Amino acid sequence: MASSAPSSSAGDMDPNTANLRQPATSFLQKNNSLDEKSRMVGAFKESAKNQRDNSERFTRDETDFSNLFARDLLPAKNGEEPTIQFLLEVVEILTNYVRKTFDRSTKVLDFHHPHQLLEGMEGFNLELSDQPESLEQILVDCRDTLKYGVRTGHPRFFNQLSSGLDIIGLAGEWLTSTANTNMFTYEIAPVFVLMEQLTLKKMREMIGWPNGDGDGLFSPGGAISNMYSVMVARYKYYPEVKTKGMSVAPRLVLFTSEHSHYSIKKAGAVLGFGKENVILLKTDERGRVIPADLEAKIIDAKQKGYVPLFVNATGGTTVYGAFDPINDIADICEKYDLWLHVDGAWGGGLLMSRKHRHKLSGIERANSVTWNPHKMMGVPLQCSAILVRDKGILQGCNSMCAGYLFQPDKQYDVNYDTGDKAIQCGRHVDIFKFWLMWKAKGTIGFEQHIDRCLDLSEYLYNKIKNREGYEMVFEGQPQHTNVCFWYIPPSLRGMPQGDERREKLHRVAPKIKALMMECGTTMVGYQPQGDKVNFFRMVVSNHAVTMSDIDFLIDEIERLGHDL
Amino acid sequence: MASSAPSSSAGDMDPNTANLRQPATSFLQKNNSLDEKSRMVGAFKESAKNQRDNSERFTRDETDFSNLFARDLLPAKNGEEPTIQFLLEVVEILTNYVRKTFDRSTKVLDFHHPHQLLEGMEGFNLELSDQPESLEQILVDCRDTLKYGVRTGHPRFFNQLSSGLDIIGLAGEWLTSTANTNMFTYEIAPVFVLMEQLTLKKMREMIGWPNGDGDGLFSPGGAISNMYSVMVARYKYYPEVKTKGMSVAPRLVLFTSEHSHYSIKKAGAVLGFGKENVILLKTDERGRVIPADLEAKIIDAKQKGYVPLFVNATGGTTVYGAFDPINDIADICEKYDLWLHVDGAWGGGLLMSRKHRHKLSGIERANSVTWNPHKMMGVPLQCSAILVRDKGILQGCNSMCAGYLFQPDKQYDVNYDTGDKAIQCGRHVDIFKFWLMWKAKGTIGFEQHIDRCLDLSEYLYNKIKNREGYEMVFEGQPQHTNVCFWYIPPSLRGMPQGDERREKLHRVAPKIKALMMECGTTMVGYQPQGDKVNFFRMVVSNHAVTMSDIDFLIDEIERLGHDL
Repeated sequence: MASSAPSSSAGDMDPNTANLRQPATSFLQKNNSLDEKSRMVGAFKESAKNQRDNSERFTRDETDFSNLFARDLLPAKNGEEPTIQFLLEVVEILTNYVRKTFDRSTKVLDFHHPHQLLEGMEGFNLELSDQPESLEQILVDCRDTLKYGVRTGHPRFFNQLSSGLDIIGLAGEWLTSTANTNMFTYEIAPVFVLMEQLTLKKMREMIGWPNGDGDGLFSPGGAISNMYSVMVARYKYYPEVKTKGMSVAPRLVLFTSEHSHYSIKKAGAVLGFGKENVILLKTDERGRVIPADLEAKIIDAKQKGYVPLFVNATGGTTVYGAFDPINDIADICEKYDLWLHVDGAWGGGLLMSRKHRHKLSGIERANSVTWNPHKMMGVPLQCSAILVRDKGILQGCNSMCAGYLFQPDKQYDVNYDTGDKAIQCGRHVDIFKFWLMWKAKGTIGFEQHIDRCLDLSEYLYNKIKNREGYEMVFEGQPQHTNVCFWYIPPSLRGMPQGDERREKLHRVAPKIKALMMECGTTMVGYQPQGDKVNFFRMVVSNHAVTMSDIDFLIDEIERLGHDL
Repeated sequence: MASSAPSSSAGDMDPNTANLRQPATSFLQKNNSLDEKSRMVGAFKESAKNQRDNSERFTRDETDFSNLFARDLLPAKNGEEPTIQFLLEVVEILTNYVRKTFDRSTKVLDFHHPHQLLEGMEGFNLELSDQPESLEQILVDCRDTLKYGVRTGHPRFFNQLSSGLDIIGLAGEWLTSTANTNMFTYEIAPVFVLMEQLTLKKMREMIGWPNGDGDGLFSPGGAISNMYSVMVARYKYYPEVKTKGMSVAPRLVLFTSEHSHYSIKKAGAVLGFGKENVILLKTDERGRVIPADLEAKIIDAKQKGYVPLFVNATGGTTVYGAFDPINDIADICEKYDLWLHVDGAWGGGLLMSRKHRHKLSGIERANSVTWNPHKMMGVPLQCSAILVRDKGILQGCNSMCAGYLFQPDKQYDVNYDTGDKAIQCGRHVDIFKFWLMWKAKGTIGFEQHIDRCLDLSEYLYNKIKNREGYEMVFEGQPQHTNVCFWYIPPSLRGMPQGDERREKLHRVAPKIKALMMECGTTMVGYQPQGDKVNFFRMVVSNHAVTMSDIDFLIDEIERLGHDL
């Protein structure tokens, strides 16, 4: 095989000389000198060799799994060999899936309705029973689970903000599940706790907080991260709510845009503010908050006797990919002493790009930031960070000091125990895959990924903005990879504007999407927004996508939509 | 290898005849007839064979990874071979780790203080940099991450309620991360959504709700599941809080025992009740709620003008493993019209055991139940279910109807989209590993696992209850696998009761634990509880534990503690 020679697809840099290139901006720090680096690489190789010599190399047998059961695997006596062979068989299924994921001749999905899958496909029965199945059957179930699923890493899967299958991230997840531990104490997750700490600091440096100071956690998704932001804001201004409840606070109001993610409103409902106390701000035609509307609504709320508490600015909205003007919003937050949160779940990744990070300018003035590496940065789901500027506030807000878990008399520095800062008790290890990807790609690798995705969406925008049969949902080049458009089938092209056309157009995207899913060729999202009828929202976050896949999507929309 | 012959460790049943055994209790339903089953197995084998023939078998090369980088892997041109070889190399690291996890000659951990790991161990540097590392280095990092971590699957790791490394569960997690999808819509997780639905129904049947009706979700851990229970209780009695906030409700109070998990109090703080409105109930000496105290505190709260809302009964407390008397509590909840939640995060698994499920009797009267298969049932972390009896209430409580995600005009039955019931938006797939384990073990396999763990803790209890140098924290045989005890070093044995002895005894468990961790031989938890000084809490949930490991723990405590 050719892989030991430098690959032709390896990009434009030789990694052994790449350190000689000086970084242009402050976030690209910490280059080891060439000398130091080559010395380290030498030591690593030696250490790798030693470790490898100490461990057994596996070999594969043709095992008959039809008479083997879970109980024959480790820790069973003589369970080692069947265990290894079973895991290798699973790995074969998985590596074949990985191969096919990147193969454009493979479908994105093989769609079935719920009732079809529930009735049972041939040999694939979802029902659970009292008696065990053989490992042969378990392997069949694994294959079928993948067969009837959706290939979210396929180059033509554009359906969600998180897509793609990163091989390093995948390896990281496999290791994480093998380690099977819990982030709540240093005691049982020493390496992962430190990786989380270092990675969060690096993220805070990129946000621009001095020395990367502050705090943070990885949480189970952006909605929970956003919920944390509202909780800490409340704790900062009304710490007694923790003890006495919302009844001791005045009527508090939160502000977020009409285009923001619904999780801010949900946080308002969950945390006891009430969703009607989450006030929606007007946006311009591009989906960006109008700062004057924020100020007007703050004044209005105060006049009604309510107390403004919190403003969310979105860095990359879900549908339009819009970036709210953070600096203008921060000015208003300072003026009225409000907590400023930036929901960068989708757009936060742009901080890694020297070309695009200006879209988040002002983020360093935020009190808290949500940033989901599992979206724009291609890290496997789930990987979402909540970052806060004030160091002690997560602990203050959430600690319950449970003596049975967070004992103060351990032999190590218990400040490294993270459990009491979280609203969870047990917490899944979401950091390792991200840390490993960062090691493997470098900051520069994430930057290239992000720039490339934005270039691809620019390509799409340029391709369709004047193309017959397309209308853009908003004018001008998108800020993020979101390209929002209507496809107008020939039958609607001559039709005058009005309710009939609107109703017909509203049904076009769902019909095309349904056909796409039946064909299994590609997937892309659609939705209405405000008074705009259903339109397609194309996003690119998958590193496997090329221009040809964008072309394919457009061809497919036209093929499926032409006769509607 | 011998694995194609029936293994001697395979337990007492031939799986091909096992269905002939009639189940004794109602929860063991749905046995396929023998005929039907053998027909199905035949079809499965055929299908497995076909699928296998269509896929390539991998072979391993000796690859030099020192000149390969992440960018050489898929989707890079010619990336397939290095991708497969890299993943196989990772799998070798992981399978070696799995092997060693079950090897008692391997340490449980190789302890280092945070500053040691942060300064960098030889060849293992946690810092992230701008430039990529070679895949050789990434593989070294994977090995080192495991090397400096804690083997939570080791037969002598007793530190947490979740322990063990189940091979089927592990395979399930590897597949889950390869599928890398999101539970929020059927559209992108059809198989997993249905598996979740069927598994939750099965769990509700075991709880005893008629026809298994109701609703539920897998959530990121027991603390969040408990939080859901408080949210839905609030929504049932005060639905307007969702819209208007806590200020429209009277002063609501929640009840839970002194021994219950801190997450109930945390939910009170997070959701805006205030933690002082979470009223702690007295327990008997075994850690079980005293029902009369509940009723007295309800009456007292009402007299003060507060409104009782919610009672949590714990099915298996964290420290003592106590089961609150659910039926007595349910009587009181019915009398005062209160929501009854059962926190069975730790003890819920006992529902799978015909011998032990009586400890949860009355659970069928609960309005909601938390049950974490990642604890007693050995499923890899995280796997926690919140189950509710009222079918529509999760949706009512949490829906925000975000049009861009949960479109009503999809081509399939959108009742299968789960996202709007959750407080998360994206939601990790926690179901597959559990579903796969259930398939592979059968209900009966979980039952055997649970009975075995309880037998082992009975063995420990009988071993130490009258042994010199031990005092039990509470009298009588434990209800769960928790065995709580003090080890009294010889130097304290003659000492009269009093403050000096208490202070000295308080320091014994932390010292022994620190020594255990330095030696790396075993890990067990300790904590104080109420006025009781630090004691050991031994728990068994790992299927690899044998009596010899229990003996080892006791020997090790005596070895390390003898001279204290």
